[in-house]
Amino acid sequence: MAANITRVQSYMNAHGLNFRPHIKTHKIPAVAAAQVAAGAKGINCQKVTEAEIFADAGFEDILITFNILGTEKLERLSSLNDRIGALKVVADSATTVDGLSAHFAGRKPLAVLVECDTGGGRCGVQTPAEAAALARHIAGKPGLSFGGLMTYPKPKSAVAVQTFLSGTIALLQADGIDCAIVTSGGTPSLFDAHLVTAATEHRAGTYIYNDRSMVRSGHCSEDDCAMHILATVVSRPTPDRAVIDAGSKALTSDLLGFSDYGVVVGYPDAVIASLSEEHGVIDLSKCTGPRPEIGEKLRIIPNHTCVVSNLFDRMVFHRDGIVTRVEDVAARGLVW
Amino acid sequence: MAANITRVQSYMNAHGLNFRPHIKTHKIPAVAAAQVAAGAKGINCQKVTEAEIFADAGFEDILITFNILGTEKLERLSSLNDRIGALKVVADSATTVDGLSAHFAGRKPLAVLVECDTGGGRCGVQTPAEAAALARHIAGKPGLSFGGLMTYPKPKSAVAVQTFLSGTIALLQADGIDCAIVTSGGTPSLFDAHLVTAATEHRAGTYIYNDRSMVRSGHCSEDDCAMHILATVVSRPTPDRAVIDAGSKALTSDLLGFSDYGVVVGYPDAVIASLSEEHGVIDLSKCTGPRPEIGEKLRIIPNHTCVVSNLFDRMVFHRDGIVTRVEDVAARGLVW
Repeated sequence: MAANITRVQSYMNAHGLNFRPHIKTHKIPAVAAAQVAAGAKGINCQKVTEAEIFADAGFEDILITFNILGTEKLERLSSLNDRIGALKVVADSATTVDGLSAHFAGRKPLAVLVECDTGGGRCGVQTPAEAAALARHIAGKPGLSFGGLMTYPKPKSAVAVQTFLSGTIALLQADGIDCAIVTSGGTPSLFDAHLVTAATEHRAGTYIYNDRSMVRSGHCSEDDCAMHILATVVSRPTPDRAVIDAGSKALTSDLLGFSDYGVVVGYPDAVIASLSEEHGVIDLSKCTGPRPEIGEKLRIIPNHTCVVSNLFDRMVFHRDGIVTRVEDVAARGLVW
Repeated sequence: MAANITRVQSYMNAHGLNFRPHIKTHKIPAVAAAQVAAGAKGINCQKVTEAEIFADAGFEDILITFNILGTEKLERLSSLNDRIGALKVVADSATTVDGLSAHFAGRKPLAVLVECDTGGGRCGVQTPAEAAALARHIAGKPGLSFGGLMTYPKPKSAVAVQTFLSGTIALLQADGIDCAIVTSGGTPSLFDAHLVTAATEHRAGTYIYNDRSMVRSGHCSEDDCAMHILATVVSRPTPDRAVIDAGSKALTSDLLGFSDYGVVVGYPDAVIASLSEEHGVIDLSKCTGPRPEIGEKLRIIPNHTCVVSNLFDRMVFHRDGIVTRVEDVAARGLVW
């Protein structure tokens, strides 16, 4: 984990990009503190309640990349804005912007970035013209300031991202509207971030631990995967089947395009073929060497680390097998 | 939920079957208390720490359907056995049985059932002969008593279950060994439980809330699904796309053979097409009627309730929309 922090921050420094780690992957203030100590500009949260926990831990520069709607959440957002230095949110519709403005008018202004769908197919305005129109709408609203542009792109789509963002910036420049922050994101294409020259910053979460999907994307090697689930073989009902005490409650059902549920370190031919909540069934039929025995502990690299963090109350950190600290996953399980 | 409890307990009563609800689906002592008040004989847990929480809440008859291995867990299991009336575990190997015996010798004896793989393909001995041999092994071990047979079958496999269990019982009868408990399980085939005439009891978890997979199996209708995830539409980037604030952290990635992630109540043609941790993307292209708007709250029936319970710290109970109580999901997130 320490090496992952250094490697990514060094890349960002080399390219003059601000870096904003997404805390979704670890949800632990002490880990975010290490990221900021290494040079990260601020942090990225996805929920108001997550941001509250990190504000309590002393973080002042927080971007919430989510459309915040509804009186309760807006009230909490406004209280949070009053107590930290640089809170920012995103919006992709006039409905969201108008809700924010109705709450923030007459209070400490909130910076709002326009979320752009540059091909990711999730939230975001669909064209530079829409983005510019929403930016103008924000700039004209009481209680708000226009903060810039944000996108969560499809991996390996630097050209599309650059085209969308630079097109929007050009439209806004014609109106004399400045984009203070232009932020793209994602770990799979993290080392292509410098190709999006319109961006001032990059956000990423998964790089902190890495996982099987990041190995596949070419971002890292298996040795760079810092999170392991430690499971015990509890049954060997047949020569070709081992059952471990880690199921979907530990590994999650996230396949991310794989056909099985993780990598068993030291048993490259073992296939975690199916999961129920508390059991994982491993197919050993392709193993030519030794096979794990009942009671043996296995280290598993998950397909997707972020969802695993959310399942556990505590995370155990170690260096070379010696436990260095145990941290509460402070921002796990938050509903909004 | 109340109707689900009544319906299933009435069926068990009508067929003279003991019923043992699996707490994995709700993980809430107050819900288990309602199940026992309705007539359930005891409860089923999957982990020692779950059983501890339910023992603290006053439950005395607990079956842990898991191979318990390792000194720490065995020590906790032994302490638990000392303080409740009828603790039972399962084993499917001599390794597990020998570990139990080494810990329980000289202490209050522990009842151990033999787990049988009747086609489910998870844990369990593979044949009646193996089951009988392991039963004899348990019966001869200090600190243990042979408690009977347990299986978690493949759905709709009553004949295979009956054949395996009755075959094992016959082998043991020849040795004068009695099977006090013969327990099968599962919600999908719950109303076929009486076809397994060798069984003395049935275990089931999902029936308490039901879910989309139980509707598909024919166990219940959509109206019998008692658990809903309440989500808010936060974005409508295109006419055919809605994005909600419920992703894999709320609905889980469990597909269970479906190609999408749940049922949107009131919008039968809406398809929850993809999830990231905090977003669900709904494809509205097949909706012929009205489409949900930004800010609208949607009720979602998940594919699989058990995994959803594990994601939330609290569950809100209501009757006709009026909240009746909020309960901690006391046994969620337990590691062992």
